[in-house]
Amino acid sequence: MDDRNIGLAHGNGGRKMRELIEAVFARQLGNPLLDLGADASALPAADGVLMVTTDGFTVQPLEFPGGDIGSLAVHGTVNDLAVSGATPLYITLNAFIEEGLDLALLQRLVTSLARAARESSVVVVAGDTKVVRRGEGSGLYLATTGIGIRPPQLRLGLHCILPGDSILVSGPVGDHGVAVLLAREQFGLDGDVRSDAASVLPLTRALSALPGLRFMRDPTRGGLATVLHDIAQADSLSVLVKEEAIPVRDSVRSLCDMLGYEPLYLACEGRVVAVVDPTQAEEALSRWRALPQGRDARIIGNVAAGQGRVLMETELGGWRPIEELEDDPLPRIC
Amino acid sequence: MDDRNIGLAHGNGGRKMRELIEAVFARQLGNPLLDLGADASALPAADGVLMVTTDGFTVQPLEFPGGDIGSLAVHGTVNDLAVSGATPLYITLNAFIEEGLDLALLQRLVTSLARAARESSVVVVAGDTKVVRRGEGSGLYLATTGIGIRPPQLRLGLHCILPGDSILVSGPVGDHGVAVLLAREQFGLDGDVRSDAASVLPLTRALSALPGLRFMRDPTRGGLATVLHDIAQADSLSVLVKEEAIPVRDSVRSLCDMLGYEPLYLACEGRVVAVVDPTQAEEALSRWRALPQGRDARIIGNVAAGQGRVLMETELGGWRPIEELEDDPLPRIC
Repeated sequence: MDDRNIGLAHGNGGRKMRELIEAVFARQLGNPLLDLGADASALPAADGVLMVTTDGFTVQPLEFPGGDIGSLAVHGTVNDLAVSGATPLYITLNAFIEEGLDLALLQRLVTSLARAARESSVVVVAGDTKVVRRGEGSGLYLATTGIGIRPPQLRLGLHCILPGDSILVSGPVGDHGVAVLLAREQFGLDGDVRSDAASVLPLTRALSALPGLRFMRDPTRGGLATVLHDIAQADSLSVLVKEEAIPVRDSVRSLCDMLGYEPLYLACEGRVVAVVDPTQAEEALSRWRALPQGRDARIIGNVAAGQGRVLMETELGGWRPIEELEDDPLPRIC
Repeated sequence: MDDRNIGLAHGNGGRKMRELIEAVFARQLGNPLLDLGADASALPAADGVLMVTTDGFTVQPLEFPGGDIGSLAVHGTVNDLAVSGATPLYITLNAFIEEGLDLALLQRLVTSLARAARESSVVVVAGDTKVVRRGEGSGLYLATTGIGIRPPQLRLGLHCILPGDSILVSGPVGDHGVAVLLAREQFGLDGDVRSDAASVLPLTRALSALPGLRFMRDPTRGGLATVLHDIAQADSLSVLVKEEAIPVRDSVRSLCDMLGYEPLYLACEGRVVAVVDPTQAEEALSRWRALPQGRDARIIGNVAAGQGRVLMETELGGWRPIEELEDDPLPRIC
């Protein structure tokens, strides 16, 4: 073991592990609630309903245009709380580090994680690191659990959706998927596409007080198509969307055409799909469009009675079903 | 992809993933708080101080005498809450599954995890699965975050320890380490050693109302020696223990002698080290000995003023320092 790469002793519970945690994790993530000498951390009392979520991260490569696994591990979990209507407060962090990982890279990723946490106003209250042998990982996997507080009266969820409701998306879909794909594969393509990975809190806060808000979700793994299926399957509704209304960047569409991917199935990491009462769709849209993150928001369709199908009106005026995702188009995207 | 092994599509967010989660995870772990259709789960209000901890699990082999990675992922996190004086209530679960993992094995491990959760009276409130490519994992890694409640008046921690305090251990050390070692390596040895992996809640509950209880910790990675260093380093104290007082099973000692390991550095997964006011050491001991989990509990030494050293009085009457763990004796033990 040298001093520039992770060794097995960095995971054994002894001196080296303590030094790694102090030099890399605690230095970046230290805060009054994170007690390295305790088995569990005490959280201050907070008003509201306690909300919990968890997410694992295996994205490859670990750094990509617009983000990295560190910031993603914060945004992914913060966003799951945000779309449930909660204010994120705390996260816990698990790191599975592969023997041999470049310590400077680990330091960069943890620095990025810490910056994303500060920007989202969450603090890391507990953490754990494990080191796995060379060949038993692929650099770094992270898992984060998020804890937040939701106003007691807020009612949101798939079960709140009614036929006639409008469906909005906060911005172009597929950027994250394409950015990671280009960073990973050696296509010789320079698409100049950056991941949309970001906190969606400004977007969810803009709608959370809107009466008639039924449901929000960030379209990550499986993309927009998968969220539309979640909506359709919850109460055997149908989802009708217009192809021309779904925002997709030209660069993303042309790269997808070239490579045979469908942007509707590609992950976003900074977008929100919202379902609202149709009388408030325009209000929701204008609230989003007033934000830098929501400038390209669109109303993409509506919910109808039905049997769990998702249909898209094509630009030529016909209807085609959007099938549920089957084979993985793009593994290790988040 | 066949039907008996995990494929990449089991992690893509689409139909196969939903089916896997329903057939394996939700079937075993379902409870009213776990809403598969939600991004975050709402927790009922509870009285007391909210305590949070997190832990990752990479043990190899995934099944070993006395436990498996599933039950370990519950016990590890429940135990971190228990030694902090909390009652564990909820856990979140992350699974990193390697492509190709036998589905029947995964089913067994999740069944075991569910049983351990029931026995510890915790429910899984959120979960996430990721599938990594063949060769990018080693079967299964788990991460769990635990949430519990601690009585507001309880004061426990390294900073509560005073010179003169007594140190107890609840049972023989090193069983887990040796059991995993024998299950993994092909020594041709049949040591008949089972892991001690278990919930330590009965042990921590027995002491939590004892005035003069200062600190509890479960000696996992790095073993008893590492906990003794934690105690010594917290406030520059010294730790003095008697070799003959430290319980080690004959089978564990002889296997360690044969293989060149030191039981003091080997992980336990069902033991507790407690530090108590010396006037209450006998009371603490008798409370533990009244329990099946604490039958072999011992007072092993005491805390003194000093400079962060751990010294052991040998069976011959001399003193030798117990050094802080350096190189990993046994990777992938938890």
